[in-house]
Amino acid sequence: MAKDKKLVEQITSMEEDFAQWYTDVVTKAGLIDYTSVKGCMVLKPAGYAIWELIQKQLDERFKETGVENVYLPMFIPESLLQKEKDHVEGFAPEVAWVTHGGLNPLQERMCVRPTSETLFCDFYSKEIESYRDLPKVYNQWCSVVRWEKETRPFLRSREFLWQEGHTAHATADEAEERTIQMLNVYADFCEEVLAMPVIKGRKTDKEKFAGAEATYTIEALMHDGKALQSGTSHNFGDGFAKAFGIQYTDKENKLQYVHQTSWGMTTRLIGAIIMVHGDDSGLVLPPRIAPVQVMVVPIMQKKEGVLEKADEIKSMLSANYRVKVDASDKNPGFKFAEQEMRGIPLRVEVGPKDIEAGQAVIVRRDTREKTIVSFDELEAKVGELLETMQKDMFERAKAHREANTRTAASWDEFTDIINTKQGFIKAMWCGEEACETAIKDETGATTRCMPFEQETLSDVCVHCGKPAKKMVYFGKAY
Amino acid sequence: MAKDKKLVEQITSMEEDFAQWYTDVVTKAGLIDYTSVKGCMVLKPAGYAIWELIQKQLDERFKETGVENVYLPMFIPESLLQKEKDHVEGFAPEVAWVTHGGLNPLQERMCVRPTSETLFCDFYSKEIESYRDLPKVYNQWCSVVRWEKETRPFLRSREFLWQEGHTAHATADEAEERTIQMLNVYADFCEEVLAMPVIKGRKTDKEKFAGAEATYTIEALMHDGKALQSGTSHNFGDGFAKAFGIQYTDKENKLQYVHQTSWGMTTRLIGAIIMVHGDDSGLVLPPRIAPVQVMVVPIMQKKEGVLEKADEIKSMLSANYRVKVDASDKNPGFKFAEQEMRGIPLRVEVGPKDIEAGQAVIVRRDTREKTIVSFDELEAKVGELLETMQKDMFERAKAHREANTRTAASWDEFTDIINTKQGFIKAMWCGEEACETAIKDETGATTRCMPFEQETLSDVCVHCGKPAKKMVYFGKAY
Repeated sequence: MAKDKKLVEQITSMEEDFAQWYTDVVTKAGLIDYTSVKGCMVLKPAGYAIWELIQKQLDERFKETGVENVYLPMFIPESLLQKEKDHVEGFAPEVAWVTHGGLNPLQERMCVRPTSETLFCDFYSKEIESYRDLPKVYNQWCSVVRWEKETRPFLRSREFLWQEGHTAHATADEAEERTIQMLNVYADFCEEVLAMPVIKGRKTDKEKFAGAEATYTIEALMHDGKALQSGTSHNFGDGFAKAFGIQYTDKENKLQYVHQTSWGMTTRLIGAIIMVHGDDSGLVLPPRIAPVQVMVVPIMQKKEGVLEKADEIKSMLSANYRVKVDASDKNPGFKFAEQEMRGIPLRVEVGPKDIEAGQAVIVRRDTREKTIVSFDELEAKVGELLETMQKDMFERAKAHREANTRTAASWDEFTDIINTKQGFIKAMWCGEEACETAIKDETGATTRCMPFEQETLSDVCVHCGKPAKKMVYFGKAY
Repeated sequence: MAKDKKLVEQITSMEEDFAQWYTDVVTKAGLIDYTSVKGCMVLKPAGYAIWELIQKQLDERFKETGVENVYLPMFIPESLLQKEKDHVEGFAPEVAWVTHGGLNPLQERMCVRPTSETLFCDFYSKEIESYRDLPKVYNQWCSVVRWEKETRPFLRSREFLWQEGHTAHATADEAEERTIQMLNVYADFCEEVLAMPVIKGRKTDKEKFAGAEATYTIEALMHDGKALQSGTSHNFGDGFAKAFGIQYTDKENKLQYVHQTSWGMTTRLIGAIIMVHGDDSGLVLPPRIAPVQVMVVPIMQKKEGVLEKADEIKSMLSANYRVKVDASDKNPGFKFAEQEMRGIPLRVEVGPKDIEAGQAVIVRRDTREKTIVSFDELEAKVGELLETMQKDMFERAKAHREANTRTAASWDEFTDIINTKQGFIKAMWCGEEACETAIKDETGATTRCMPFEQETLSDVCVHCGKPAKKMVYFGKAY
């Protein structure tokens, strides 16, 4: 009982300390455990099962667009990492180096991949000869390592799981099209599956990926008003192709460089789910990504027929939903708190009185709304509530983002918002990196993206007053 | 066209040079590519898709037995690796060492996991407190690194993909039961999905896993008569629990050590599929593991209606089978050779004359048998042929193994078989490691396993003449 109790002890409230609330949720909902290697965590069954569902649903969406999965080595020889100048500058300071294989020092040290552009380029330089070999639209699911100084579960860890897509195309247009296509796949996935609204846009040059010509991003707003970059898609142009000599002969038998893209999403998404949907009782999982969608809790389970009925309900629902029965020897109050902490979308309560009345009680995790339904209608009602909950969670998250997105027409307005409010600030920008840096230094806010949906808020840059080039989303970010 | 041609050029025949035949198949069937890191390969789409199907079907079987998936870090601090004496002796000579994180040397070097017993033990020592926390039946899908000197694609590579299950139980009996249960899951999977018959048995002490009390194995016979260890399941007793202090309080409130198991299968299985089923035209994939089960090849595809019909057939079959149409501009002969090289189980040919006659031609990859069927019956026939082929492939592999399994009652017989034949030798053994080593030194044959199905071939050891303890399968192995 001691352990059960720990799980459902009051967690820190969001209001009181959002960071501590987050840490409480990731550990008490059983998502992760810390390990003896700093910044590396154990993804426990409840956490990994979310990742499995992300993987499955994202992978299906990838494959519908023609993506093929591959697996490349985890090691990159130092000389390979160094082939593209901007790229190595971006990553070399934060990679883990392997220097010995068994008892012998290596002739050349290798890093554990922080990302695999260089490996894919090396591979493509051998695979691609003619226009017939194009496009290559490959992806891999793997873990990568970045030796970060500050770490936080899911949001910034030294090793994390992700997918990285790497494509090669005959033309610049095709590469740009694929870059945007994958950003749209990401955005749709976040909105439809994770119930998390996102802003689509382009990163400024200062914030783009090391070696990219253009980086596109989807940005989400967390409950505390901070932004989270949730997925990125990069267009490399022919920069990597030139550094690695990836050429093909076109239909006129002329040698051409390929145009490349890459795009990735990570276990960071689990952090996003927590921070967008969670509440003071713990995790709240959108039904489409919940490893367990319905927890059946028998009441007075020692009475004859109660456990049998709970199992019967489970069997009935299991054809279409992910269902469990909590038949442990804890009392119902503990079971409720545990189901809430773990974010399981629906709870079905059934006890002797319910059985007598031919009904059960369904409780929604997000609103705690109770519905009493007859056994006959239970299956249909569960389906309906899961759909409604998915939709409501998205709408609530969107309303929260809208309530926390403000426009600043002047620098006074900008600083006033930064000092008193949380959330996104939309403002005009001159396009100069110096100005972007000054804004960051003065306020801590970074450019999240130049959204595809541009508005003209004024003619001048919010900071320097020079002619404005773009409307930008600013925010403090994870 | 140059590239297509390369693919279907004559490969080395098995008879002439089995090792070269194997290398030809793995590369020309598009399964792998070599990389600039020796012993690390690229799993290309055709190779990775087989692994995805292995993963999916094995994972379903795991979950039916209550397995939950997790993910643990890839790094093991040196001090952790050293906690179990036999284990570190077995693995330390072949691990890759990380010594630097970013620009700084690490305080303690870490190895990239060669296997994760030590990490799971560290994790379990924190997770497990009471009998209520048991059993733990966790598994992870990941890659591991072993710095081998000699490497071969799939069979022995420095990095490979696998699954590793790690369990903790209250009693020795439960641990033994789980060890055998997982061996049976492996054996059934190999026989039912990969169409590969296996011998189940126990490894001798000399051949068991570093740190295990008992190792169980499934052994398969390759086409060239060599054995391949295809999956192992280990019972650790409480050895690791004592080294790592993994204790729980039982129902009587007494502290007890847990009993542990681990079990793994790897991408090596893809090598097994190649070497059990392949022929001189390339790969032959059992239908249940074939990423593409049916390749529709249009004949005279420029004629009106042919490509449409091919697509129509694809649509019809796609509800139940994995189907592609080869609509490339290669000629049918090339397409046939390519489909054969890639091991696609069925080819459906359809041309103008077939359309006129309302029929198509189905060709089996394994027997090349042709069947002419009307469009009406095509779907049913494809299903039937795939099932028959799956069954026939298993029976053929089993007949091959039986024809290449011999018994040796005397040392003369043993050496005679070794010198003139390939395959398994069943023989009696005294149980002494010295004798086992002598047999290996004299003949190159190792003990593959002490099979569960024991026979009494004689009363004395085949080598030393002392009283026999066990019947053993001997063989030369990959």
